[in-house]
Amino acid sequence: MSNSRRFVSKLFQNFGRVEPEGSSQTCQSQILMQYNDIVESCHSGCYVMLPFGQRALDKLVRVVDEEMQAIGGQKISLPTLAPAKLWKKSERWDDALNELFTLKDRHNVQYCLGPTHEELVTNLMAMYSPISEKRLPIKFYQITRKFRDEMKPKHLLLRGREFEMKDMYSFDASESEARETYDIVCESYSRLFSRLELPFAKVEGATGNIGGSISHEFHLMSSVGEDKLLFCEKCSFRSNSELVKDQSTVCPTCDADCQLRTSPGIEIGHTFLLGTKYSSVFKSTCMKSDRGIDLTHMGCYGIGVSRLLQGSVEVLSSENKIRWPRLIAPYQICILPHKGIKAAAEQYLATSLTLSDALNVMPNLKHEVVIDDRQQISLGKRLFDAKRLGYPYIIVVGKRIQENPPIFEIIETSTNESHFLSIDSLKDFLSTVETI
Amino acid sequence: MSNSRRFVSKLFQNFGRVEPEGSSQTCQSQILMQYNDIVESCHSGCYVMLPFGQRALDKLVRVVDEEMQAIGGQKISLPTLAPAKLWKKSERWDDALNELFTLKDRHNVQYCLGPTHEELVTNLMAMYSPISEKRLPIKFYQITRKFRDEMKPKHLLLRGREFEMKDMYSFDASESEARETYDIVCESYSRLFSRLELPFAKVEGATGNIGGSISHEFHLMSSVGEDKLLFCEKCSFRSNSELVKDQSTVCPTCDADCQLRTSPGIEIGHTFLLGTKYSSVFKSTCMKSDRGIDLTHMGCYGIGVSRLLQGSVEVLSSENKIRWPRLIAPYQICILPHKGIKAAAEQYLATSLTLSDALNVMPNLKHEVVIDDRQQISLGKRLFDAKRLGYPYIIVVGKRIQENPPIFEIIETSTNESHFLSIDSLKDFLSTVETI
Repeated sequence: MSNSRRFVSKLFQNFGRVEPEGSSQTCQSQILMQYNDIVESCHSGCYVMLPFGQRALDKLVRVVDEEMQAIGGQKISLPTLAPAKLWKKSERWDDALNELFTLKDRHNVQYCLGPTHEELVTNLMAMYSPISEKRLPIKFYQITRKFRDEMKPKHLLLRGREFEMKDMYSFDASESEARETYDIVCESYSRLFSRLELPFAKVEGATGNIGGSISHEFHLMSSVGEDKLLFCEKCSFRSNSELVKDQSTVCPTCDADCQLRTSPGIEIGHTFLLGTKYSSVFKSTCMKSDRGIDLTHMGCYGIGVSRLLQGSVEVLSSENKIRWPRLIAPYQICILPHKGIKAAAEQYLATSLTLSDALNVMPNLKHEVVIDDRQQISLGKRLFDAKRLGYPYIIVVGKRIQENPPIFEIIETSTNESHFLSIDSLKDFLSTVETI
Repeated sequence: MSNSRRFVSKLFQNFGRVEPEGSSQTCQSQILMQYNDIVESCHSGCYVMLPFGQRALDKLVRVVDEEMQAIGGQKISLPTLAPAKLWKKSERWDDALNELFTLKDRHNVQYCLGPTHEELVTNLMAMYSPISEKRLPIKFYQITRKFRDEMKPKHLLLRGREFEMKDMYSFDASESEARETYDIVCESYSRLFSRLELPFAKVEGATGNIGGSISHEFHLMSSVGEDKLLFCEKCSFRSNSELVKDQSTVCPTCDADCQLRTSPGIEIGHTFLLGTKYSSVFKSTCMKSDRGIDLTHMGCYGIGVSRLLQGSVEVLSSENKIRWPRLIAPYQICILPHKGIKAAAEQYLATSLTLSDALNVMPNLKHEVVIDDRQQISLGKRLFDAKRLGYPYIIVVGKRIQENPPIFEIIETSTNESHFLSIDSLKDFLSTVETI
């Protein structure tokens, strides 16, 4: 049992670092994550996920896994080293070269570090081609580290040179089926972001270097966002301003009097209906009962997972307090034993340990509980730390445990509301907390 | 509920590929994994984990996570791009250069793709130095992709140029405490490999380019292994033959008459007691109550996770049948509805769906059940497929479901034993299956 107890004194946290002067060019989430030991900057555009950040990231990966698998996504992983030969075949090499990290191996073969993997995955499908149309759609996805040699890395994980990305690639037997798959994936994106309780918008996006006929972007609404989005209040027009000619702010689908609302956004997802752009190059084909062998129709769908992590913190937090999408908070519960005089302090700690054990055996709370055992520090200071780090629930163990039955104070940090509950009511209350 | 049903007809499996002629230089696990759509070779030393392989890998990662966290390991992730500057500072750059992938970014700054991360992690600790000794030991670990420009990639995942590695780095306040931590990590390795039911040996290893004073290797005993291990039957001497001078086969700690037994091994883990080799270079220090500021004493500990995956298949499988460590089998259960005439076939399938639903709600079997719905194929052929792929449990749904109560045949593939059970007994039987 003691194995499951996590003590704040032993976690890599609370180093009390302060924001250095002159860091005004950063954004709120960068400051919150860097000075609360969530993420550390390593070298230009490259970061260390520290233990709290890694826990949140691992949970976010599991949420994405669940949503992708719920629509039949099959997880794979492709190599990081992508042969230049394949990128030249798809004619993306020269266009993208500025932002590619490239290298040669000991045999002088050239590679890039894959920023996206249309070439590799289509080439993989070609090895299995022609595939029976009965097996389609196939939706492969991976959640792996990607690379882009950004000119100006910025805002920590929001624009890094290494980042975690979920990329899905779909293969269908026809254009109309590919379009259906495209819609299904877009809907799963909306479900994912809703499940994370995030304010997001889906807009039309540019196809750019990746290509295709239809493209949408998913954005978090935030002043930190580098994209400018346009919304029409009258019709359904929603678009990245890149798509609008001459920086016009008049709705292209309504009339000349209709001014568009503009808003900055952080791009967290991007979808492309690719058609046969890659399948024709790499010969990814399927076998149809009526028409013989035909090219597969593809879609590709990205989510910037590490960017989504920081973007969530950016839009949910206040200046001094990190707020996570509750589902992916590094830990759900922080137990705070009061200070008190010696005998009382020992009793508060002992009760906290027992409480931690009792919560840890609840199926939804396994490994979700930490005990802030730093009793030499005042309760107020530790309460401040706990709120700052964004544990969704804080349980204070103090004098009222001497009542019959013992009473615990539980604070919901999202509302700052307190409840005073017996152990049974507390467990009831916490039994509905969704975790992953 | 139907969301949780997985149909074999929709899985990326059973393409019926056959081993090409002239592939005699490969090993059993390579053939089994490549021709059963577990792993696909992409280009020299680089692989695609296909859906079955990825599921097993993800589970293996979770087992490793559990064992590392059980000894207080805190998960992080370090950048892939490791600055040449840091590697030159530790004087590893020139030694390792042959096997490093190196590249320059757009600003002409040089990096390698990290094969191990002593430099980055010690540099990270230096940012937090001096650290109070009360916070030590700190055991950071990551499970990320690593890179080595092997001259001769071989045997698929056993010697690749990209591979998944778990690397842990420990920081202690003194040599004796570092030694204690070293022993604790070694014990956790033994627990991990035992939990996977693998035949392994721990031997003394060379410190090589990584350095340090003590080193051990963990090996799977297999004729495919590239390392030659020496064992003394009389004393506790167990060593990699690299450490023995002049290829001697006489035990160096017993007497001249004592011949060593030799055995090939696949290296799956390697541990190093580093001392202050890296902390002195990068100034990773701690604050001691009695002696002021002092260097931290380090250890580093690797597990080749993707190599362990294939190595397990290598040592557990037979020529035609994949066997996984049961805990990490891609799926635990395959349900096979009999063929039968039309009405019967429909009933077998319907019962299989209900059974799948009933098993999927058991906490240990969520997402662990697949239904081989390819009823146009004979039961014998599908049974062969299921045994070939190594599902630990196969449930045949046939005529005996018409009995009262309905009877299911469950086959344990590890022993090939059959049991004929009612649904309640079946659920009891399967309730003890450990999953992760």
